[in-house]
Amino acid sequence: MTRERNILITIEYDGSDFCGWQIQPNVRTVQGDLEKVLTRVCGAPVKLNGTSRTDAGVHALGQRASFKGSYGIPLDKIAEAANNILAGGRKTASSVGDVKITDVKEVPADFHARFSSRGKKYRYVIYNGGNVDIFRRNYCYQVMAKLDTDSMNKACSYIKGTHDFAVFQASGGPKKKTTVRTVHSLDVFRKGEDVIIEITGDGFLYNMVRIITGTLVEVGLGKRQPQDVRDMIDSKDRKQAGHTAPPEGLYLVEVYYEQEI
Amino acid sequence: MTRERNILITIEYDGSDFCGWQIQPNVRTVQGDLEKVLTRVCGAPVKLNGTSRTDAGVHALGQRASFKGSYGIPLDKIAEAANNILAGGRKTASSVGDVKITDVKEVPADFHARFSSRGKKYRYVIYNGGNVDIFRRNYCYQVMAKLDTDSMNKACSYIKGTHDFAVFQASGGPKKKTTVRTVHSLDVFRKGEDVIIEITGDGFLYNMVRIITGTLVEVGLGKRQPQDVRDMIDSKDRKQAGHTAPPEGLYLVEVYYEQEI
Repeated sequence: MTRERNILITIEYDGSDFCGWQIQPNVRTVQGDLEKVLTRVCGAPVKLNGTSRTDAGVHALGQRASFKGSYGIPLDKIAEAANNILAGGRKTASSVGDVKITDVKEVPADFHARFSSRGKKYRYVIYNGGNVDIFRRNYCYQVMAKLDTDSMNKACSYIKGTHDFAVFQASGGPKKKTTVRTVHSLDVFRKGEDVIIEITGDGFLYNMVRIITGTLVEVGLGKRQPQDVRDMIDSKDRKQAGHTAPPEGLYLVEVYYEQEI
Repeated sequence: MTRERNILITIEYDGSDFCGWQIQPNVRTVQGDLEKVLTRVCGAPVKLNGTSRTDAGVHALGQRASFKGSYGIPLDKIAEAANNILAGGRKTASSVGDVKITDVKEVPADFHARFSSRGKKYRYVIYNGGNVDIFRRNYCYQVMAKLDTDSMNKACSYIKGTHDFAVFQASGGPKKKTTVRTVHSLDVFRKGEDVIIEITGDGFLYNMVRIITGTLVEVGLGKRQPQDVRDMIDSKDRKQAGHTAPPEGLYLVEVYYEQEI
């Protein structure tokens, strides 16, 4: 009999046509698509533990998920077989899908893609070119007025570090024991006509990156002062923070595990 | 009473979520969306004459369409009003639609967006970076093996000029009086990890740009020799040409009118 293995996969996806990561009845989800395909490829039911429950429209370059089972298929065939099926939905010669498994490896039996995670990196892409770009409507937040990235970076200095981030938590998310989190790094920089926000932390509250982005955008537009962010955090009141930036600009870039940090 | 005006609009669209330009019952088309919105904006029925009947998945940077009527709305308010409605389908703060009117002008009464056209420019975008890019699946043809653009340009030299292009005509398109066309320019060049094909001509047969692209790709992969293209054109037999490249790489860039050339 085949021994049970614990398998960790890395996944890239374009969230545009998905109702988010988490499996739900009657709608297309990344977890739902992957479980169906992996069940077929592995020849036995696959249930995935994903690291991050990304919302509808949010993208991933390095989502992680683990699953356990006794499967006959060699580890190095899983990605190829699954990616072939995942790309098969399109009928053109190019046949490119919107989900791709980029890595597969075996991990110890007690490893869990979510609970073993020690941190994550997100990127938020703002197109600040001054004109609407219809071809990027699913891939960035389009802010017309020029953003002052110096002010945005000043505001970041109040967010970095360990704080109670209740102010940046949307209602409606999963219950958390504490709203204290550590933001290890937070940078705002221009890349061509884009303004990029990169944030790493030990964990993020519901919609936290999108609310931080909305707040930073308001600072970049001069509607708020960088130093306002300090009192905002102290207030622990969601209403004091900025708007929630739209999902299409958000990318889960990387998940960190103890052995990888 | 308001006098009748003949109005020419320039349109940009992302063809990914459309069943092409031409209006059809029960499916989403660019013409259908635009007529609905313009009828609302102009306060009276609008019927559009589009220049090019782009297929499902094909994009446009400079599609043209004309329409006639006695409308109260000032010319310079049409784009703004229509674009607001066209962008309103999305509920996020950024609200970017997939169709945008980029220019509106009045033209003489005898002008017709299609029949007055003297030529068109198309661009075909091939991603040749060596890896699948899921985020660009709707915006380019992804060819993995490295393309030899020198060979492709040699092949272009046989296509440029005035020829009977029956070999590059797909069946199923609208009946044409003649299959003789003039290709004014045809260039293949690299731009970053992309290979771009740009073609201008006085008119194009059904799927002509996509079949030329498929043929050039086969030349670029070494499956055909550049000089094979000469005999291919002489054969006037579609079966002798290469495959039809997928629609998602094709962009209608510009339409030329007498006064603009």
